[in-house]
Amino acid sequence: MPRAVAGPEIERLIQLLGRLPGLGPRSARRAALALVKKKDLLLVPLAGAMTVAAERIVTCSVCGNVDTSDPCIICTDPTRDGRTIVVVEDVSDLWALERAAAINARYHVLGGTLSPLDGVGPEDLTIDQLVARCAGGDVSEVIIAVNATVDGQATAHVITDRLAGLPVKVSRLAHGVPVGGELDYLDEGTLSAAIRARTPF
Amino acid sequence: MPRAVAGPEIERLIQLLGRLPGLGPRSARRAALALVKKKDLLLVPLAGAMTVAAERIVTCSVCGNVDTSDPCIICTDPTRDGRTIVVVEDVSDLWALERAAAINARYHVLGGTLSPLDGVGPEDLTIDQLVARCAGGDVSEVIIAVNATVDGQATAHVITDRLAGLPVKVSRLAHGVPVGGELDYLDEGTLSAAIRARTPF
Repeated sequence: MPRAVAGPEIERLIQLLGRLPGLGPRSARRAALALVKKKDLLLVPLAGAMTVAAERIVTCSVCGNVDTSDPCIICTDPTRDGRTIVVVEDVSDLWALERAAAINARYHVLGGTLSPLDGVGPEDLTIDQLVARCAGGDVSEVIIAVNATVDGQATAHVITDRLAGLPVKVSRLAHGVPVGGELDYLDEGTLSAAIRARTPF
Repeated sequence: MPRAVAGPEIERLIQLLGRLPGLGPRSARRAALALVKKKDLLLVPLAGAMTVAAERIVTCSVCGNVDTSDPCIICTDPTRDGRTIVVVEDVSDLWALERAAAINARYHVLGGTLSPLDGVGPEDLTIDQLVARCAGGDVSEVIIAVNATVDGQATAHVITDRLAGLPVKVSRLAHGVPVGGELDYLDEGTLSAAIRARTPF
């Protein structure tokens, strides 16, 4: 800004809000203004929630989920099937599977995918920890639920190789037509996969 | 969510972030996850900035700007022309004019526009305060810089009526072709206004 219209506190708030994903400079200003205007309704509770989160949130040392306890709420849930581990790239994928209530198992967050071009090798992911969990003997199935991208599939292959020899079944998500999807809008790869994996009606 | 995947602290953070303008439920989750992952780089500084803002930011009792001091930095700036008051609907409009460095004057934030359908009458805006500022005798010009909407223009007319009789010149923003605008994409009203207000070349 050419001149200060308010104290540096608001400028700093705008600048930090602009670093959130999905908020550009303009929407960060709008968000800051909304916060300042709704001080008691929004700014104070949000500042409090962030302070609490900053103090209490940790990464689960078992699965890589984020929670206020370590091990996390999922790793300590006795109603979940501890013999099945769903391997995901990111915590957001874990949340997505949980929103869908797709499976009542435990998870393992890789922290990304292998990407030689970006310098991400197996040592940057939590593959060793996954192998160690499976080597313990308490796990019977590993479901690899990584994204259906080239990097994701390459990562899935590396994990499968590393788990070979251990007494665990390794499976991956099915490819096919998304529920509610229209064939006309789907790519050839998905359609071919859906035909190959066709199921009896 | 069908089941808790993390403590209530993260859920509360997502819920509060989702109340910011421009963030829906999905982007609020993404933002919360980014905050939790970049704890030291983003979550802690933002929590601090919000706490400081919540403690220190007040509305200027003179002009309605938000700042950490009352009167605000603009009302106390001796280099500004205190004889000219720019009337805006909202603090965001004040910020926009300041970003453009359009004028080096003082401001008056109305807090909205008249809107009979929404039950917003003159008493809900700061029109009385504006009249009081102008009646003091230190003001020579009021520039009405409200949005070029129906409500905005109706508000401008009411303000003009209220200021009639006071020794102040009342002006409003020029209508015309936006800088960089293409005629083909402009509405008829703007084009007609631009022709009527044509200037010598």
